[in-house]
Amino acid sequence: MKLIAPIATAIAAAAFTLPAAAQFAKPEDAVKYRQSALFVMSQHFARIGAMANDKVPYDAKAAVENAEVVAEMAKLPWTGFVPGTDKIGNTKAKPEIWTEQAKFREHNEKLVGETQKLLAAAKTNNLDNLKAAFKPTAAACKACHDDFRNK
Amino acid sequence: MKLIAPIATAIAAAAFTLPAAAQFAKPEDAVKYRQSALFVMSQHFARIGAMANDKVPYDAKAAVENAEVVAEMAKLPWTGFVPGTDKIGNTKAKPEIWTEQAKFREHNEKLVGETQKLLAAAKTNNLDNLKAAFKPTAAACKACHDDFRNK
Repeated sequence: MKLIAPIATAIAAAAFTLPAAAQFAKPEDAVKYRQSALFVMSQHFARIGAMANDKVPYDAKAAVENAEVVAEMAKLPWTGFVPGTDKIGNTKAKPEIWTEQAKFREHNEKLVGETQKLLAAAKTNNLDNLKAAFKPTAAACKACHDDFRNK
Repeated sequence: MKLIAPIATAIAAAAFTLPAAAQFAKPEDAVKYRQSALFVMSQHFARIGAMANDKVPYDAKAAVENAEVVAEMAKLPWTGFVPGTDKIGNTKAKPEIWTEQAKFREHNEKLVGETQKLLAAAKTNNLDNLKAAFKPTAAACKACHDDFRNK
């Protein structure tokens, strides 16, 4: 597994401390958990995107607050991808998540790393830095969706 | 509005920086957001509860990790309670949330304050401290549910 950055790897490792299945009372909870964490992240990420794409005025404080939530939320969803939950509810998870675990985790860690950089960029209070960090973060979302999420 | 603790109040104030409605593309997103944040919080809180209630062995590191997520998540749901979203989707939100805003926010801030104390207790690496802090946090959840959530 490629190591993106020491800090991201440490964070991702912490997220994988416990066996994933042991953390959820039932498979439906695991699906709901990962979808919930990803949705909360997406909402805050979209607010940064609106600034990065000049759709709303740049608000440095709001950018940092949103980036903090994004960086925290990015660590969470992965334990929800419990083996055997690719047919539960309305999930779009592809079975490849479980047959290509190393690649999936590489994507997860990539996202965690990019969100850490996004937060660091937000904290510079500079819109150009935010824009520069937004793109690779969005690309990390898309890369994983392309490989591991059904349309 | 009663001030629970300076830190909790500052956090809650930050969460209320922007007009809530302006943060969501549509009312359904606001409902999904608050439900998602509360669900993620509940999952991590339940893991602390399992330790506090002697249902699983005490794991000091896991307690801190879960308490960190709980404390972060506790700040989030409240912006999702956008006026006019008491009949959207499968929400259990009572209309009193919007007619008794001061009381609702007092509940929100109480929860944020208790989750900060829970995190501090977890960081002492002492199960008795965790147990002592778990109860008032659970009570803060219940108090708001009793007043503002339909069965």
